[in-house]
Amino acid sequence: MTYDLWYWPSIPGRGEFVRVALEAASIAYRDCARERGAEALLADMQARAPHAPFAPPYLVAGDLVIAQTAHILAWLGDRHELAPKDETGMLWTIQVQLTISDIVAEAHSVHHPVDAADYYSGQKVEARRAAKAFREARMPKFLKWFEAAIDESGWVAGDGWGHADTSLFQLIEGLRYAYPKRMAALEGDFPRLIALHDRVARLPGIAAYCASDRRLPFNEDGIFRHYPELDGE
Amino acid sequence: MTYDLWYWPSIPGRGEFVRVALEAASIAYRDCARERGAEALLADMQARAPHAPFAPPYLVAGDLVIAQTAHILAWLGDRHELAPKDETGMLWTIQVQLTISDIVAEAHSVHHPVDAADYYSGQKVEARRAAKAFREARMPKFLKWFEAAIDESGWVAGDGWGHADTSLFQLIEGLRYAYPKRMAALEGDFPRLIALHDRVARLPGIAAYCASDRRLPFNEDGIFRHYPELDGE
Repeated sequence: MTYDLWYWPSIPGRGEFVRVALEAASIAYRDCARERGAEALLADMQARAPHAPFAPPYLVAGDLVIAQTAHILAWLGDRHELAPKDETGMLWTIQVQLTISDIVAEAHSVHHPVDAADYYSGQKVEARRAAKAFREARMPKFLKWFEAAIDESGWVAGDGWGHADTSLFQLIEGLRYAYPKRMAALEGDFPRLIALHDRVARLPGIAAYCASDRRLPFNEDGIFRHYPELDGE
Repeated sequence: MTYDLWYWPSIPGRGEFVRVALEAASIAYRDCARERGAEALLADMQARAPHAPFAPPYLVAGDLVIAQTAHILAWLGDRHELAPKDETGMLWTIQVQLTISDIVAEAHSVHHPVDAADYYSGQKVEARRAAKAFREARMPKFLKWFEAAIDESGWVAGDGWGHADTSLFQLIEGLRYAYPKRMAALEGDFPRLIALHDRVARLPGIAAYCASDRRLPFNEDGIFRHYPELDGE
């Protein structure tokens, strides 16, 4: 089955966490809104009522419609063996994935701390304070936890990569884009996490994807935005 | 098996979403930190390394340790039939649960928009602006979506209550506590949601729980806080 993935066509955003898992596993999917545009995405979402997703990304698999990034990945993980089969490893992988969702939401809130519907330019003063707290307290706290979450094998769980590993790769990519100075200062403290990132980058599916024009660059409409005034060591 | 639930002992917070599901289904659990204190919670969390949860709540079921509210509820839902068995209904219930997690996180960010580690008193000006956006845009958007998520049966999915229904009950309780004026103005637009809330309140397990001293009152250390300056029609 070829899946239909629906996500905003102009940003990596949350959809990219789904894409990297699909690409790493060479699972066939149509990136529908990149082919058909944002209007088609909005029309498709509305047409899913009464089970319209609250927001993209969502995956359509035959009659199933699955929204929420971590939920999509947990479902794909179960179906395509992108997570351990044993209950402990499977549950742990989802727990890590949900914690990645938490830092992704916080990363977005940094540049939109007081009004998600207003522009960044309308909340720059507040964003500067939010960025300081994110850089100094939240980033090290999350990264320390992810570092500890990686087991002896070098992956989150089991003997090979899973959906939490591809998401950690994408998280590191996003944090490096948004906070290059801060990440340069922090990365030495998290050798397992950076080694995992590099190992995911070398997976054949990921290497091919990142070299293709399917891989959208980060930009200042997305979740991970590079505003130099929000970065710092 | 009697489960061990660990959560901060002085607030309803995210732990309460787990408690209401357990209580509605009369599932035996120990509320460990209420018996043993917050220091015991922190010690227990650390002792779970290398799989220490990032944050409470977490549920211990024999050898399994499950953190993240929606993840705990999805697992309980599967094990105790608190969600439909069919894949569509089961996945939809989890999707609704994850969307509840999103509004809960936003409700917390309202009173801590720029620094989760600082006191509310240190970010009151920013909180006032965040509250306006939450009341005027985010609350109606989420509530409209939850209203549409409820099917003909009056529940989120299937013929009886499930874990998304008890969570919607708790969400409405929290929003009423934090934003009584705004909820009074909005509730008339969401009759299915309010009817669902009332139906959950009448479940024998919930009625008994809410009348007991196990039910913690909302307060200004939790997620749903009543600051009159943040409320408004």
